[in-house]
Amino acid sequence: SSIRSGVACRALNVETKHFFSLGSKFQLEDVIEAQQFDRDTLSAIFDVALEMEKIEKNSAGSHLLQGYLMATLFYEPSTRTRLSFESAMKRLGGEVLTTENAREFSSAAKGETLEDTIRTVEGYCDIIVMRHFESGAARRAATTAGIPVINAGDGPGQHPTQALLDVYTIQRELGKLDGIKVGLVGDLANGRTVRSLAYLLAKYNNVKIYLVSPEVVKMKDDIKDYLTSKGVEWEESADLMEVASKCDVVYQTRIQRERFGERIDLYEEARGRYIVDQNVLDVMQKHAVVMHPLPRLDEITVDVDADPRAAYFRQAKNGLYIRMALLKLLLLGW
Amino acid sequence: SSIRSGVACRALNVETKHFFSLGSKFQLEDVIEAQQFDRDTLSAIFDVALEMEKIEKNSAGSHLLQGYLMATLFYEPSTRTRLSFESAMKRLGGEVLTTENAREFSSAAKGETLEDTIRTVEGYCDIIVMRHFESGAARRAATTAGIPVINAGDGPGQHPTQALLDVYTIQRELGKLDGIKVGLVGDLANGRTVRSLAYLLAKYNNVKIYLVSPEVVKMKDDIKDYLTSKGVEWEESADLMEVASKCDVVYQTRIQRERFGERIDLYEEARGRYIVDQNVLDVMQKHAVVMHPLPRLDEITVDVDADPRAAYFRQAKNGLYIRMALLKLLLLGW
Amino acid sequence: SSIRSGVACRALNVETKHFFSLGSKFQLEDVIEAQQFDRDTLSAIFDVALEMEKIEKNSAGSHLLQGYLMATLFYEPSTRTRLSFESAMKRLGGEVLTTENAREFSSAAKGETLEDTIRTVEGYCDIIVMRHFESGAARRAATTAGIPVINAGDGPGQHPTQALLDVYTIQRELGKLDGIKVGLVGDLANGRTVRSLAYLLAKYNNVKIYLVSPEVVKMKDDIKDYLTSKGVEWEESADLMEVASKCDVVYQTRIQRERFGERIDLYEEARGRYIVDQNVLDVMQKHAVVMHPLPRLDEITVDVDADPRAAYFRQAKNGLYIRMALLKLLLLGW
Repeated sequence: SSIRSGVACRALNVETKHFFSLGSKFQLEDVIEAQQFDRDTLSAIFDVALEMEKIEKNSAGSHLLQGYLMATLFYEPSTRTRLSFESAMKRLGGEVLTTENAREFSSAAKGETLEDTIRTVEGYCDIIVMRHFESGAARRAATTAGIPVINAGDGPGQHPTQALLDVYTIQRELGKLDGIKVGLVGDLANGRTVRSLAYLLAKYNNVKIYLVSPEVVKMKDDIKDYLTSKGVEWEESADLMEVASKCDVVYQTRIQRERFGERIDLYEEARGRYIVDQNVLDVMQKHAVVMHPLPRLDEITVDVDADPRAAYFRQAKNGLYIRMALLKLLLLGW
Repeated sequence: SSIRSGVACRALNVETKHFFSLGSKFQLEDVIEAQQFDRDTLSAIFDVALEMEKIEKNSAGSHLLQGYLMATLFYEPSTRTRLSFESAMKRLGGEVLTTENAREFSSAAKGETLEDTIRTVEGYCDIIVMRHFESGAARRAATTAGIPVINAGDGPGQHPTQALLDVYTIQRELGKLDGIKVGLVGDLANGRTVRSLAYLLAKYNNVKIYLVSPEVVKMKDDIKDYLTSKGVEWEESADLMEVASKCDVVYQTRIQRERFGERIDLYEEARGRYIVDQNVLDVMQKHAVVMHPLPRLDEITVDVDADPRAAYFRQAKNGLYIRMALLKLLLLGW
Repeated sequence: SSIRSGVACRALNVETKHFFSLGSKFQLEDVIEAQQFDRDTLSAIFDVALEMEKIEKNSAGSHLLQGYLMATLFYEPSTRTRLSFESAMKRLGGEVLTTENAREFSSAAKGETLEDTIRTVEGYCDIIVMRHFESGAARRAATTAGIPVINAGDGPGQHPTQALLDVYTIQRELGKLDGIKVGLVGDLANGRTVRSLAYLLAKYNNVKIYLVSPEVVKMKDDIKDYLTSKGVEWEESADLMEVASKCDVVYQTRIQRERFGERIDLYEEARGRYIVDQNVLDVMQKHAVVMHPLPRLDEITVDVDADPRAAYFRQAKNGLYIRMALLKLLLLGW
């Protein structure tokens, strides 16, 4: 259908706006969506993230971003994401201006535009990390601002640093991204995390993706078409145990009751069938890992935590390194 | 009337409490109201603000206020003002303790006095920036505290740093304050901004003020009497175009619908007549500027932004320099 | 009764979990409850707090904790406590990640466990200061975290840094803790402050405690039994004037109307009889002091503030020194 090809086309569209050429490397100007990064740029960012792990472990602290000021402009609270960015900035010696009630900018005034707010805030800092409730808000902010903007999630739209940290975690845990088998499990229809991850995995060679979900929250066609168009092998399955035994990564997500409407029976059945527990670990390969974007409820049982293959807290920590890397690259360049 | 002369008298009253003599210069102790500053002090503060522009542009960062701690004690949220102060402190190498829910101090306790709160908070920091919902609160805080207090707005009362940044912006944009023609436009009855600005402009020679507003929100008599008593020429007008063609500064403010009660027809008429747009720019002189305290809604059209005479975002940025200057002066002296 | 002896037993139980041996000194690992400290450790902490007073008075600022990052994870707002901890960290050159809406961690996710939150947050910082609404939450956090945890109050449970600053204040004001007479006044049934203080005072020799309160909010039997078991002399009294004339410390607390239910008459009578005012000062000894955990309402009249024996604002300031000391000890050791 035209809708499908439209989406595929948009996804295929090479996004170069947020880079400009700088000798042989591209200068990163903003971080707006996962699709803006090509394979080489991802690899280069991951190299910097690895350096950041060393810096973070040095308790004397870094002065790399001393004198730089980051504003966290959050139009909706997201304490987890905010703390991760603020920690990243402070670990590099930078300073932070915080606001978790950025709506107040416009509500007090009964209607200041996002553009006006950005033009005011950019006068107070060197980089803006923005969380917004509207899809596309980050791009509008980046277009307005003369300083770098990082999208920390804009509504149902993008959350690119989450996508980057997911791919970085696979690289760190498995040592490679080509030739891997990834099981995406749970709510694949609504989770922007698994959608972004599927987009990024399509940049690598010989990747196989298993889509494991209840019927009600299946992966949408746009992503499946996109994977097909990029030559990525994918397969839908309702059998978590079988998929788990084959995969290098089991990427678990939460299934939300709300998505099932009045069919509580379907919800209860779905929950029971897609829990990662000791039984799942038992069939998984030794080198494979369990990932989860967190927060986790009961879709991964607590006894899994002690298994070395439980990578989700390491994954959260990798978010710090990815954000340190992006702040460094946006403010100082490569 | 006795009310008018009372106000004029209060305004004329030279305010010296927040200074003490230090050789030839006065030491600034607190910033409580716009009226506390005389012309020489304003000029000296503006010189420091100009130095601050250079410091802020130095990305290495300043260490001028290293080791100093500022508390932003906000009894009502004002993200814009708070971020400006916090940026100012951090640009100078100082540190910040933030609270936007200072009401919690007293509400939790069901009634701690402001004075007790101040005596506690002054033990944690070197300077307090306070926003309060009650007129006169800043003065009470300053009387109690042994450390400097800056009023970041106290209810319908004062917002002196806004008044200072307005005058500083005129100085920066026009290169002078004597002999200027200023059009104050919009809601002149309720805006504390235009009232404070009128007070401060009266300190300069040969200033002419045009008051351009709907009948319902005309400038109140106390300010007009004060201007007269100080020998400032002023004139009321309903013709924005004519005033704009004569002025050096068109200071636009927002007209709030609420002020018109049920007379929506008058509100709609007023809005339409007092919008700064391309037509207004067309009659303005080349050197003249448009100012606005922000946030701006539709009282200045977006196409004005690109004109070099649109000074309102530079004005917001000047707030940073003025606040840096005040923090420096209050903590380190001249 | 078995309940009483259970409590006494728990209180008597030597708490060593939060220390480990380090040569001749114990290394402090977490600060969870007042009872974890023995007399020697208290004395050692107070020595460090005294050094901190000197550091804080040095306006150049300390770099002792440079490169360290503290997260204030507050599940309920407590601006007073939060600012005190954040000031302590910043006075030592450390940095802070702030959240006053930590409930959002779990609410957004509709149910993330405290343990999962801690495992995420510990990846962003070097030490966690936690305020929680549930008794026992701090201990759970400390058990989970690989980094130090300080309890900044967990529901009706513990608020150990308040208890430490109270004892430190007595030491600073009187120069000793053995042989003192302390009057605990007001609501002794519900105030965790006076309960913790009684526990800690029992570690010193020859202490006499007067319990002065309305019948409705008398000190509970568990504490009285505990004092008896430790050989501490105590006496109940309804006569504030007589007690005040004998004591070295009058420790006043607020009586809350809610505790009296519908007996407003009893509340009004109680309030009137237990106010510290000039009459109380008149019978107090010259060297004695008035303390209060703050916030204060009308249970100490404002005219008392000017008397040198009014120690409550110095007491609040001592909270800063105690918190500086604990941060130093937890992060750098003795």
